[in-house]
Amino acid sequence: MSLKIPIETSARHVHICEEDFKLLFGEDASLHYVHELSQPGQYLCQERVTVVGPRGRFEKVAILGPFRKDTQIELSVTDTRKIGIPSVIRQSGDIEGTPGCQLIGPNGTIDLDKGVIVAKRHIHMRPVEASRAHVKDNDEVFVIMESYERGLIFADVVVRVSPKFKLAMHVDTDEANAFANDQSPTGAILKLFDGQTYSLQQWADEIQSGINR
Amino acid sequence: MSLKIPIETSARHVHICEEDFKLLFGEDASLHYVHELSQPGQYLCQERVTVVGPRGRFEKVAILGPFRKDTQIELSVTDTRKIGIPSVIRQSGDIEGTPGCQLIGPNGTIDLDKGVIVAKRHIHMRPVEASRAHVKDNDEVFVIMESYERGLIFADVVVRVSPKFKLAMHVDTDEANAFANDQSPTGAILKLFDGQTYSLQQWADEIQSGINR
Repeated sequence: MSLKIPIETSARHVHICEEDFKLLFGEDASLHYVHELSQPGQYLCQERVTVVGPRGRFEKVAILGPFRKDTQIELSVTDTRKIGIPSVIRQSGDIEGTPGCQLIGPNGTIDLDKGVIVAKRHIHMRPVEASRAHVKDNDEVFVIMESYERGLIFADVVVRVSPKFKLAMHVDTDEANAFANDQSPTGAILKLFDGQTYSLQQWADEIQSGINR
Repeated sequence: MSLKIPIETSARHVHICEEDFKLLFGEDASLHYVHELSQPGQYLCQERVTVVGPRGRFEKVAILGPFRKDTQIELSVTDTRKIGIPSVIRQSGDIEGTPGCQLIGPNGTIDLDKGVIVAKRHIHMRPVEASRAHVKDNDEVFVIMESYERGLIFADVVVRVSPKFKLAMHVDTDEANAFANDQSPTGAILKLFDGQTYSLQQWADEIQSGINR
């Protein structure tokens, strides 16, 4: 029995460290819970910030709680291009060497020298689901999407396994809009090349060279 | 030998009929050529319009010449959502039953009752290339994209064949941003299920039901 994976779209948002939050919202400010997100323990906050790049800005960007060790801004490629920041695809938390931006809150402004990422598409799952799907943490897999009129197969999808997770694949708004999805889209892991994603590029190269397997 | 297909990204733009153009720019106005586009005979114009939906607007949207029989506005799904227009995926020219919008020019405003589409991804090719690729006009194929870190395979790509065309695949900005592309990305037609795109959904359903072929 294969896994039917719910697909969730991540719109632009900010994870924030406590120190940066105090600079933006004031020494006595705290995060105000609005509602829970699909991953246990994560929640949308009432507080919003402005994200500024060299060519533009986004107002009222959502902050997700709880506090994290480092401030991280997740944008789509459409977003980064619009405000003039390089598009660097990274897993969440891996922000060394990424571009920075300016954040503006009601109480102050900070200039970050890193932290802006385009989140690499990924699947959250629990160990029991990983076992059923024959995958392990940090594997990269193909996912075939259900779509009513413009379907696609995503390569390079990272699997993240933890007992704290709930089964869901996260894509950004560009990725979600690239296939025509309905209200509750789902996907399934596709075993190609024994799960070796790098082979997609080899396959593409071979096809372009006229080699058909 | 397979075809190496250049991938071109279509940003939002407008094709316009002469009558609507005169209403927006004045009775004596004409299209002013800026530069040629990849498809022979098509060109970017100096004139720009504002596209207005129920929830927002885009200023300075490009007009592509020459005049067409019907006015048609091509947006990405990100765009349609932003200004509050339903996302209807169509081939160029097939605008019956599509949503409308308002267009504003320097000389007037028009309210269109149809014409806003999200262009269905497609490949322009000449008959000789179609023959080499073993496809014909209106076939739907899979295309495997070259990408350095987030690759994918597009299903439901329409082939359009005409001696007037130049080989190129056109995707919208969401689709282009969903795979990480370089300066001059290319793709190749992939023969799966003997070229039957509808089988992708059947395959997805089978995988989700636990059937592995």
